[in-house]
Amino acid sequence: MPRIRGYFHPKTATGRSSLIPAPPWHYSGDLLTIEYRTDPGRVRELLPEPLELAPDDPGAVALIWADWQSCGDSRQELLDPVRSQYREAFAVVRCSYRARTYSRCVHIWVDRDFALARGLHQGYPKKLGSIHLTRAHPCGPAPRPEAGARFGATLAAADRRLAQAVVTLREPSASGGFVNAHPMLHHRWLPAIDKGGGLALDELVETGAAAFEAGPAWRGDAELDLFDAPTEELSRLAVREPIAAYWRQVGVVWDGGTLLESGTSGAGL
Amino acid sequence: MPRIRGYFHPKTATGRSSLIPAPPWHYSGDLLTIEYRTDPGRVRELLPEPLELAPDDPGAVALIWADWQSCGDSRQELLDPVRSQYREAFAVVRCSYRARTYSRCVHIWVDRDFALARGLHQGYPKKLGSIHLTRAHPCGPAPRPEAGARFGATLAAADRRLAQAVVTLREPSASGGFVNAHPMLHHRWLPAIDKGGGLALDELVETGAAAFEAGPAWRGDAELDLFDAPTEELSRLAVREPIAAYWRQVGVVWDGGTLLESGTSGAGL
Amino acid sequence: MPRIRGYFHPKTATGRSSLIPAPPWHYSGDLLTIEYRTDPGRVRELLPEPLELAPDDPGAVALIWADWQSCGDSRQELLDPVRSQYREAFAVVRCSYRARTYSRCVHIWVDRDFALARGLHQGYPKKLGSIHLTRAHPCGPAPRPEAGARFGATLAAADRRLAQAVVTLREPSASGGFVNAHPMLHHRWLPAIDKGGGLALDELVETGAAAFEAGPAWRGDAELDLFDAPTEELSRLAVREPIAAYWRQVGVVWDGGTLLESGTSGAGL
Amino acid sequence: MPRIRGYFHPKTATGRSSLIPAPPWHYSGDLLTIEYRTDPGRVRELLPEPLELAPDDPGAVALIWADWQSCGDSRQELLDPVRSQYREAFAVVRCSYRARTYSRCVHIWVDRDFALARGLHQGYPKKLGSIHLTRAHPCGPAPRPEAGARFGATLAAADRRLAQAVVTLREPSASGGFVNAHPMLHHRWLPAIDKGGGLALDELVETGAAAFEAGPAWRGDAELDLFDAPTEELSRLAVREPIAAYWRQVGVVWDGGTLLESGTSGAGL
Repeated sequence: MPRIRGYFHPKTATGRSSLIPAPPWHYSGDLLTIEYRTDPGRVRELLPEPLELAPDDPGAVALIWADWQSCGDSRQELLDPVRSQYREAFAVVRCSYRARTYSRCVHIWVDRDFALARGLHQGYPKKLGSIHLTRAHPCGPAPRPEAGARFGATLAAADRRLAQAVVTLREPSASGGFVNAHPMLHHRWLPAIDKGGGLALDELVETGAAAFEAGPAWRGDAELDLFDAPTEELSRLAVREPIAAYWRQVGVVWDGGTLLESGTSGAGL
Repeated sequence: MPRIRGYFHPKTATGRSSLIPAPPWHYSGDLLTIEYRTDPGRVRELLPEPLELAPDDPGAVALIWADWQSCGDSRQELLDPVRSQYREAFAVVRCSYRARTYSRCVHIWVDRDFALARGLHQGYPKKLGSIHLTRAHPCGPAPRPEAGARFGATLAAADRRLAQAVVTLREPSASGGFVNAHPMLHHRWLPAIDKGGGLALDELVETGAAAFEAGPAWRGDAELDLFDAPTEELSRLAVREPIAAYWRQVGVVWDGGTLLESGTSGAGL
Repeated sequence: MPRIRGYFHPKTATGRSSLIPAPPWHYSGDLLTIEYRTDPGRVRELLPEPLELAPDDPGAVALIWADWQSCGDSRQELLDPVRSQYREAFAVVRCSYRARTYSRCVHIWVDRDFALARGLHQGYPKKLGSIHLTRAHPCGPAPRPEAGARFGATLAAADRRLAQAVVTLREPSASGGFVNAHPMLHHRWLPAIDKGGGLALDELVETGAAAFEAGPAWRGDAELDLFDAPTEELSRLAVREPIAAYWRQVGVVWDGGTLLESGTSGAGL
Repeated sequence: MPRIRGYFHPKTATGRSSLIPAPPWHYSGDLLTIEYRTDPGRVRELLPEPLELAPDDPGAVALIWADWQSCGDSRQELLDPVRSQYREAFAVVRCSYRARTYSRCVHIWVDRDFALARGLHQGYPKKLGSIHLTRAHPCGPAPRPEAGARFGATLAAADRRLAQAVVTLREPSASGGFVNAHPMLHHRWLPAIDKGGGLALDELVETGAAAFEAGPAWRGDAELDLFDAPTEELSRLAVREPIAAYWRQVGVVWDGGTLLESGTSGAGL
């Protein structure tokens, strides 16, 4: 019997202090997705070995804003919503590995520590940011999900605005986009504690939803601005050609992934 | 023609910098209302002259959590949601003035400066706080508005939790509560700049919605905890007897009020 | 005897809930001041009647970052520092009134509600912002106050950076600047609650420190960038010619001001 | 040559986006340390195998508040202080390993993401919190470092206050305390991505300052309150007997550590 436990730190005798509970993790959220094409070279430069560009539409990017409520199996977080609600904005590209196409998150900002910790586990490269997203509402001036409805979305980090968008819905859609629709192919990296020791953790993992449900999706178009910042490179994924924008409400369960390789990324410090 | 203008400060040549635009102000929001009875003496002690206790059910209190999106007539704030979204928690009592029953907000916390400024104009005694409220959602673990659905709500200020509640919905309801259902009777106060000068502004005002729409209301019951803090007195409105709890989505327009009296409250500094 | 009291709202039976205590207010703080000349027309357009440009150096501007600890006479806030510490950034110009030169704050951002409320009382046009300022420190990489020391300062509001500066100290200085060195001439404005009712409060007030102490001042130069934003006009005070920059630690007591005129500003809503 | 690099995520072609730069990391900060004895059993229950209680004074705890400015070798963060300033509060105990006494951080809260990421690397079990600490100041009401000076310190997480303290300085001191004065013995843990896969990372590491300087230390006494919370266990380290409190300004360089063992902690998920 272990003296101390907890799915994440801090580990204690009870496990109660862990920043996150053990999976499965359950999510309810609104997604605003903007898909566009960038220079495929800008996607390629973000892919470590042995990942390559997706064969089809290799410069496709999805920039996604999400407004979440999440919890573990106990669902206790939902009743103390400071522990369940968070927002995030993230950039997803596609890549090819062993002849299969995957989605891969290359930049992501969230606004809560528990979301940051889950990202560390899942291989999402999370930083803290300030994320805002218009919410659909049945009354008053906020938009209903319908043709002509407009949603704003913004992202800032370190007191600088990194992205802003306005999405206008045009018509119902069968999907919520294609760039983030594959299994996720992520790396989990941590440097060695010893100086010059390279990577202590260098894992290529596959993850994805254990369950997924979605309300009606809407398709539309977006105005999108990306801004430079000293420690951010989102704006390198410049818009070369818009594809479409999507709004959808979803429910997701995440329950672990699969280790594919270890020690092979060749990534530098 | 004025050299400088703006509905609120800072006033400039263009008026563009004003912290808030001129009314009307439009709101979309979710309301979670917990009604209960406290000692009527605790209500009475918050009423300046010439306000008196409401003749009927004088100890009734509504503690309300609201999750808002708001904007001026231009609606521009909705597309830059850091300027439209905010949350608030507030305590409302009833009072009697000239033989009429009014609602009156006695404590309120919001999380954005534009909401604070609107409150100063409307006579709401706003402070900043951290407010969280479970949101209904059609997918995943968050509650649908239905019998048995549970919503959490919390309030903190100055890094201390002041209130927390869990509301369980039981059945559809014709109303969203009665305590906050009257016109609002508020004071607008500001001390004189000269030391010992008393009040520079001492107005009794009536305000209320210029327009109101609401989705289906649900009725239920609540567990509510109020906590003490060195600079807060919400917990003096202790629960003596629960009444009911309500969840409802609303749309509101606010477009000014009416000055009733000036210089008569006898309030001290 | 008043039924309810408190220097500010909310007023209660005890007065304990007031967002701010009665003056005097005591402050300890570090000031980083950047002085420069802008187009005097951009200063003039911010002055309501009957204020005019200062006769001497009318385009002078001070952009000031301050890192404060403040309290009332009880000094209790100092021991619960979430209630005493705050930062602010503000733009000060000079103006002439009745043949005397005054300082006047035309834009200001703070990061706490109690500072916002004090500003409302004093006529500072405060909004919330995110303000950061390098602190001098005797150990490690942070600067000592000495020749060559460099201090950074940034301001953001609504998730947009509005200003950033780097100040390099060059030599000891007899003063901390001249633009913010006069008594303050401010307006206290609040619209009438009745639509179309103009201003309910329109006061011209003079305020200033009741006591002031300062440590050694340093003089240097600054790199300063101002950025545009949809609801901000700080960048209209564009730098035409640098003057100097100053760093200084100060202690201040504020204890009320003087009403000069009422109802005469001609300011528009 | 690696395709992508960065000391931490996100790794990119340039490495510029990394949440933290490669060590060395440089720190300037103020430390307020409260030392006391708790039930040694409460320390023991936080120590994984093969760690044991320190032979001498095994129940000693240091609860430390720190107000930092930090940077990498480029020192650029100091000039954009939103990227260098942060605060933290942490609990340190001592333990024995291979007949040597170490310090070990068992709970810690910080208020910035870059500090969280550094903690992940160093084995500090960091969460986000809201941390406040009175700062010494040469002017005005804030304390000078002198006999009788009083400093407040508070910690909150998830909108609940977890700890608050008032420290009164009494006399100069040769040291800043003994509990946090040893090399640090930490674990770096991360669960496997595969469900049921145990720990992917389970490292016992030793770290410590590569360089350290300190200003004059002061010794005094403290009033300390610890509060319960659903997901926190700091209050289990209840005060059985006070030892002393210390205030000191320090400069620190951190530049890596040493891996001692891997896969041996027996810690549970």
